[in-house]
Amino acid sequence: MGLTAAVAGASGYAGGELLRILLQHPEVEVGALTAGSNAGTRLGEHHPHLVPLADRVLADTSVESLAGHDVVFLALPHGQSAALAAGLPETTLVIDCGADFRLEDPAAWQKWYGGEHAGTWPYGLPELPGQRAALRGARRIAVPGCYPTVVSLALVPALAADLVEPDDLVVVAASGTSGAGRSLKPHLLASEVMGSTSAYSVGGVHRHVPEIEQNLRRVASGPLRVSFTPLLVPMPRGILATCTARVKPGVDAARARAAYAEAWADEPFLQLLPEGTWPTTASTIGSNSVHAQVAVDERAGRLVVVAAIDNLTKGTAGGAVQCMNLALGLPEQTGLTATGLAP
Amino acid sequence: MGLTAAVAGASGYAGGELLRILLQHPEVEVGALTAGSNAGTRLGEHHPHLVPLADRVLADTSVESLAGHDVVFLALPHGQSAALAAGLPETTLVIDCGADFRLEDPAAWQKWYGGEHAGTWPYGLPELPGQRAALRGARRIAVPGCYPTVVSLALVPALAADLVEPDDLVVVAASGTSGAGRSLKPHLLASEVMGSTSAYSVGGVHRHVPEIEQNLRRVASGPLRVSFTPLLVPMPRGILATCTARVKPGVDAARARAAYAEAWADEPFLQLLPEGTWPTTASTIGSNSVHAQVAVDERAGRLVVVAAIDNLTKGTAGGAVQCMNLALGLPEQTGLTATGLAP
Amino acid sequence: MGLTAAVAGASGYAGGELLRILLQHPEVEVGALTAGSNAGTRLGEHHPHLVPLADRVLADTSVESLAGHDVVFLALPHGQSAALAAGLPETTLVIDCGADFRLEDPAAWQKWYGGEHAGTWPYGLPELPGQRAALRGARRIAVPGCYPTVVSLALVPALAADLVEPDDLVVVAASGTSGAGRSLKPHLLASEVMGSTSAYSVGGVHRHVPEIEQNLRRVASGPLRVSFTPLLVPMPRGILATCTARVKPGVDAARARAAYAEAWADEPFLQLLPEGTWPTTASTIGSNSVHAQVAVDERAGRLVVVAAIDNLTKGTAGGAVQCMNLALGLPEQTGLTATGLAP
Amino acid sequence: MGLTAAVAGASGYAGGELLRILLQHPEVEVGALTAGSNAGTRLGEHHPHLVPLADRVLADTSVESLAGHDVVFLALPHGQSAALAAGLPETTLVIDCGADFRLEDPAAWQKWYGGEHAGTWPYGLPELPGQRAALRGARRIAVPGCYPTVVSLALVPALAADLVEPDDLVVVAASGTSGAGRSLKPHLLASEVMGSTSAYSVGGVHRHVPEIEQNLRRVASGPLRVSFTPLLVPMPRGILATCTARVKPGVDAARARAAYAEAWADEPFLQLLPEGTWPTTASTIGSNSVHAQVAVDERAGRLVVVAAIDNLTKGTAGGAVQCMNLALGLPEQTGLTATGLAP
Repeated sequence: MGLTAAVAGASGYAGGELLRILLQHPEVEVGALTAGSNAGTRLGEHHPHLVPLADRVLADTSVESLAGHDVVFLALPHGQSAALAAGLPETTLVIDCGADFRLEDPAAWQKWYGGEHAGTWPYGLPELPGQRAALRGARRIAVPGCYPTVVSLALVPALAADLVEPDDLVVVAASGTSGAGRSLKPHLLASEVMGSTSAYSVGGVHRHVPEIEQNLRRVASGPLRVSFTPLLVPMPRGILATCTARVKPGVDAARARAAYAEAWADEPFLQLLPEGTWPTTASTIGSNSVHAQVAVDERAGRLVVVAAIDNLTKGTAGGAVQCMNLALGLPEQTGLTATGLAP
Repeated sequence: MGLTAAVAGASGYAGGELLRILLQHPEVEVGALTAGSNAGTRLGEHHPHLVPLADRVLADTSVESLAGHDVVFLALPHGQSAALAAGLPETTLVIDCGADFRLEDPAAWQKWYGGEHAGTWPYGLPELPGQRAALRGARRIAVPGCYPTVVSLALVPALAADLVEPDDLVVVAASGTSGAGRSLKPHLLASEVMGSTSAYSVGGVHRHVPEIEQNLRRVASGPLRVSFTPLLVPMPRGILATCTARVKPGVDAARARAAYAEAWADEPFLQLLPEGTWPTTASTIGSNSVHAQVAVDERAGRLVVVAAIDNLTKGTAGGAVQCMNLALGLPEQTGLTATGLAP
Repeated sequence: MGLTAAVAGASGYAGGELLRILLQHPEVEVGALTAGSNAGTRLGEHHPHLVPLADRVLADTSVESLAGHDVVFLALPHGQSAALAAGLPETTLVIDCGADFRLEDPAAWQKWYGGEHAGTWPYGLPELPGQRAALRGARRIAVPGCYPTVVSLALVPALAADLVEPDDLVVVAASGTSGAGRSLKPHLLASEVMGSTSAYSVGGVHRHVPEIEQNLRRVASGPLRVSFTPLLVPMPRGILATCTARVKPGVDAARARAAYAEAWADEPFLQLLPEGTWPTTASTIGSNSVHAQVAVDERAGRLVVVAAIDNLTKGTAGGAVQCMNLALGLPEQTGLTATGLAP
Repeated sequence: MGLTAAVAGASGYAGGELLRILLQHPEVEVGALTAGSNAGTRLGEHHPHLVPLADRVLADTSVESLAGHDVVFLALPHGQSAALAAGLPETTLVIDCGADFRLEDPAAWQKWYGGEHAGTWPYGLPELPGQRAALRGARRIAVPGCYPTVVSLALVPALAADLVEPDDLVVVAASGTSGAGRSLKPHLLASEVMGSTSAYSVGGVHRHVPEIEQNLRRVASGPLRVSFTPLLVPMPRGILATCTARVKPGVDAARARAAYAEAWADEPFLQLLPEGTWPTTASTIGSNSVHAQVAVDERAGRLVVVAAIDNLTKGTAGGAVQCMNLALGLPEQTGLTATGLAP
């Protein structure tokens, strides 16, 4: 327990999940907890499940309140991280769960988020080819978005093994509501969500599109085009991504499975399920696992990869802690589990 | 109330929904109710919501029990309808909610269902181009499957207006659990479903694929290829279909909207939502409506159509009653509503 | 369709349910729709399920906008109804779905709601003994709260038949989220509600307590004491009330069932289920029915009555339309159904 | 990791939860996994969330397959445990999650379960007064039922401090569906459960009644009477118990809170929430915690205690591991957490 970690944005869902994981991490002690409009309130008011921290009072999010820790997690709306990070020593490990430092291309940032590009930090998806090296010893890390996490991991092996055409990827990803955060919006009310499925940000306008493309471009053999449609489904956690791509000639199901099996052979958190078994989001809840299965639809000429994660764990807070472990030289799985909570 | 209707398979979900609708139909009196293994039990044991019919005892499903009605609805597992229909007079309107008489191609039947092809009846999707004429006065009707209903309606206008390439359609359709019927299977238990989304019949192996293709072939300008992935989401009713296709050059969002607006201008149950509004399944529950919206993703080069229905109403029992109305010369909307039950 | 009805508060859940029912009412035409902060918006933005009214624009709630109708339904937060009603002619039927005119005792109003008591209108629960007479021809009606509706109906037969002691009634009522309205509060977010049950207003502090007592006092043979605990359960609609009372000597299950069967024999919307069948809220959804069952626990010395309703239908809007029918001399069931929508 | 543990009934929900917890227990290695009709199948088919054990093949449940472990957990239908336990050495710790050895009174067993009474083992609810001593060093332990766990813990402090009359306890407990196990019954299908609340075993006929009474009798100052009504609510896990009792003269809310605060001061898993905060089941999911709050309803003359647990964790498998720790001399909290998984 030599390390201390602060969490900015502790009253939100991502902040709560970070704390849930850190409470079971053997090397980390939870330090300052900060918030915006919830500063001054008890953590227990927002996260009654975090019993050991219930009486902690949230400080204002500021350089001062976050300073003096080994690790600082930022779980904030985009646009706030740069100023805080600038005020913290370069030796402090700063892990941003927001979007500010994910995109490499300033023009893409400008187009999709608007305003000035804050910069680019090492991208916190260790399972991307070559990415672990970039994270070891890093002191600034940008954690991926939840959709880019699962979609990128689902499609990278197929693109890297040249099984599919990169120019016509079609993804439909069904997400639980916590992905939208604790926003007080009518369409997120329980009365509206329970018993209902809907689509949103349809037509390629979701901000995670450029991030998905940036990841896939690393391994694609040609120009990329991604059609991405997110769905809101009535469950609190989880994403199920259905990812399809036109197969190249001669690619069949066996070859596709073999490519995934090989790519993930040494990955502790990426699970290619046994043949014939398809993922359920429930099996991943609370875990840092990705569950996936592949098929080739020969009539349609498409590979179909279905992958499930917990959006708050592997999709946000678990991924962040995995990066922390890598950055600090701890075993990558410390404090994380591949085992979900079901039913 | 001059007409009598029998329902075979009354203890299942489709049978229950038929009865719910028939109870509010001004021209129909509910006649015999029949079942397989549930014969001899009270309807109220299976459908306590159908208060006026609670004490009706279910007869055995047989030609004898179904004879003597103006209309006979069959809501049975596939393979049982042909023998029953053969025993009923040609003047009786027989409406099959199962798959037996949907496919035109005996080879397709053999491939997807196995066994001998029972034949082909007029296909009960009035909104398909030219189909109303085939249904008026018909005495045998094959009601479409739930997925083919929503997917076909969602894609026909785009194909008919030649907005998209027909050879790379990609559909992901999220369904509530009632679509699987009242089957006692572990993956349909509430403990497994609540909080979880999963995919099934992935890779183009769902039996609704040939039916979707058969419908779309009517209007497609070239060879069809459909990638279809069904999802099981935690809600009792509803399907949300996300349908995408590569747009032809020069097709933009305005032109796509105009094509749908024109195609559906006179359709009482097909609702193109106002621009910027995306469908939710909840809005269609209990109604015979289809809610849809379209977008063109210019980066990805794809049209995206999202459409919602209630799988038990428009997707099965409501569609069946709509066909009955047409066949019998009643106003098409009799006993049906475009208004859903929400929240 | 000689009658016109206005709905104030049309963008809320109660307003939406009123409109859903009125759309299927053969004698009523929907007139003005009004709202508070949502004035100026289209109804379809708030209730996409109400297809035929989607393009109606909401007016400001005011005497002017509501005047000129045969019936005015008020679905407003408490405190707003008195001024509106005062501005409408005495010949207009005004039906208040809020609390303002429910309580007879000014001191109770003052204690539970605060502020000045607006007065008392005929109480819109026709199934209370003697109450139909008070509603026939009435031009001002106060619709009961959702909990008082189901709890009162569940306990009146037992108290009226002197089966139980009135001084130790214990009620726990589980409600879906729409009972809380479309309020943007964190505990009503889907992420918080799905997968979770909680209690609220515990310890006898819910405002429906005095209303329940007022109803039961009509038939109780002695002083009343009611312990009432409401639960929030993860479903959009429905209330299941578990009501228990100490049985008087000699009262057994058969006698209890007989009392309920007799009390409800002629009630179109009150369903005593067959012996051994217990109510489910799902069976009542969208209907104006109450489903109930009774048991006597001889070891514990208590009668247990379990009753289910749809809080928005029988518990609010359906009850309101039932009262409208009575007040205007229409058959009581006009436009209403005893049949629920399930599954 | 010196200890080995076998789990009989590994393919059910209780078995799965035992394994989930044992996987994170630092002192236990998972040994044999056995099943009844699922023997011969892979664990991953039943519990895909238990990634590290996915390829384990289930053995037949028998003395032979269970022998040779330090600990044997039995998660079986009642009636099977006695023969297995008799075949295992007295030095083996056998922990029965079923009902066979819970009741002390053979007549009660005969009445509620039928057949011969197998005997009585030390009762595995450490928080009952004096019970820890009975569990330390024990080699046979009967884990409580899920309802008795939460109801007993909720009411013991009030009875022990003589705050309430013991002869008129009224409990309504809302449970998620996993409490019913993985049974293929129509009322447990997702289509039936989602959107619906119901009551079952009403009228004092649930088998957990005598167990609750046995526990409360330890501390009650007089004859006990318990009215117990279980509800099935649409969530996979969790129980929320609303427990009320007539208060004795002079007992107010402050005194009630003080009694609970004192009784639970040293209990690691029993959380009296801050004043004004009421428990939600979601906050306890996956944890071994009980969350509770108390109120006194002075008008009704009743104490109301609301308590939440995860039925599979504290209510079954977590409680079992807590007992194992006590029996084996390990710190009681080893491998368990007070922190829930939410949202």
